[in-house]
Amino acid sequence: MKLTADQLAEFEEEGFLFLPRVFSPDEMDLLNSQLGRIFAEDRPEVIREKGSSSPRSAFYVQTWNPVFALLARHPRLVEPGMQILSSDKLYMHQFKINAKAAFDGAVWQWHQDYATWFNDDDMPAPRAMNIALFLAEANEFNGPLMFIPRSHRRGRLEAGHDVTTTSYPLWTIDNATITRLVEEGGIVAPKGPPGSILLFHGNLVHASGSNLTPWSRWILYLSLNRCDNAIRRFKRPTWIANRDFTPIEMLPDGCLLDYRRAVATAAQ
Amino acid sequence: MKLTADQLAEFEEEGFLFLPRVFSPDEMDLLNSQLGRIFAEDRPEVIREKGSSSPRSAFYVQTWNPVFALLARHPRLVEPGMQILSSDKLYMHQFKINAKAAFDGAVWQWHQDYATWFNDDDMPAPRAMNIALFLAEANEFNGPLMFIPRSHRRGRLEAGHDVTTTSYPLWTIDNATITRLVEEGGIVAPKGPPGSILLFHGNLVHASGSNLTPWSRWILYLSLNRCDNAIRRFKRPTWIANRDFTPIEMLPDGCLLDYRRAVATAAQ
Repeated sequence: MKLTADQLAEFEEEGFLFLPRVFSPDEMDLLNSQLGRIFAEDRPEVIREKGSSSPRSAFYVQTWNPVFALLARHPRLVEPGMQILSSDKLYMHQFKINAKAAFDGAVWQWHQDYATWFNDDDMPAPRAMNIALFLAEANEFNGPLMFIPRSHRRGRLEAGHDVTTTSYPLWTIDNATITRLVEEGGIVAPKGPPGSILLFHGNLVHASGSNLTPWSRWILYLSLNRCDNAIRRFKRPTWIANRDFTPIEMLPDGCLLDYRRAVATAAQ
Repeated sequence: MKLTADQLAEFEEEGFLFLPRVFSPDEMDLLNSQLGRIFAEDRPEVIREKGSSSPRSAFYVQTWNPVFALLARHPRLVEPGMQILSSDKLYMHQFKINAKAAFDGAVWQWHQDYATWFNDDDMPAPRAMNIALFLAEANEFNGPLMFIPRSHRRGRLEAGHDVTTTSYPLWTIDNATITRLVEEGGIVAPKGPPGSILLFHGNLVHASGSNLTPWSRWILYLSLNRCDNAIRRFKRPTWIANRDFTPIEMLPDGCLLDYRRAVATAAQ
């Protein structure tokens, strides 16, 4: 899956690119069939909401679930990253599913991901990015990602370490700066069905609201980094800031449905 | 301002009616010029968000601000209530401004207002309703009101008294019931500029999300009740559940701008 020159230009300009329906309903069924068991696991990589047992995030899932292991090497996710980051040597800095559970999903405050990668992990440059795959529909009500377009052009902004608002510590940006950025760029929230993907720059300022609806808003995030931009501080566990810098080798485009067929055959 | 037969039928069917731009920008400027001093007041009628000094609500404002006193008798708000409730003898059960401040506005959980009016105030029947006036733009990002269309047809639903989630105690509806209602009716969030009004049934199930944006979402609420349906328990203070059942006498349609002219003349 190659991005066009126009799509690459749009990413440069706006800081993000939304592509609806990149994965088929059959592929999404296979992925979603794994979520129940993933979030039922009692292990450090599975984070709960503050004051409840609702799932908030599951980290490093590519190492402990065989289906998500395929997705971490899927060409429809990895190849656009190679194009945007101008390198075919990328590794997986972070791989997580964010739940934002029905009725209980809390906010993510305004932040840049690169602020965390810099402050916590000593990543040299913002040559890393996120690729989000919607596992469930994202709509206007269930706490979709909100972006401030073009905010990535400001570089890394001052941030403070918020360790109280939610169960996950985050380097967040002050209200005066957000007000100024929103005056210039506004806010957008790309919405779409399961299987849509959303690519965004490591310096794009983003947040997401609460989810009071019966609709859980599951999103998978790949944080891809150039191998020549690997982190230099190992403060966070490897499941949250990966220390394995092996370049990703892509699998064939049909790997998910091939896997499903193989499992079905083996069961016969 | 008379509602048409079609508008009355829509209200009956859906449980709400949205009318954009009912008040002019000049009228809205006058109202909004009062908000700073209203929320600066240190008095019991002004409620703050849990754990912060951001304003959440100001109650009974018609008794302590001269401009909002006019609004409590404004024909563009009161006359539609008379039509829908089929009575020209209405009194003001509650009159409040909800702030949902920029960056800090917390959620309102799913609830029916009549549940509170019944449980706390012993209001005999759901012959009361809300009229919301947008003092600021309501958009998809700043925590707009969310309705479950047609949920008012279920009558009063079981509710539990939630005294912990926010700074304001509320009779809220359980998640299983909300899931069922949303499967049938979906969710809508009417959006529009300042001066728009939103009429909704006392039994319509509604909620609103957090506000992470720089845009405060101010809404004025009139809760109108038929004088022959007055409350019979006086557990809550009169500023939150009014004990003055005097029928509202409407003012002329131009009362707001007449007031502004009179003040300007007096200042000369």
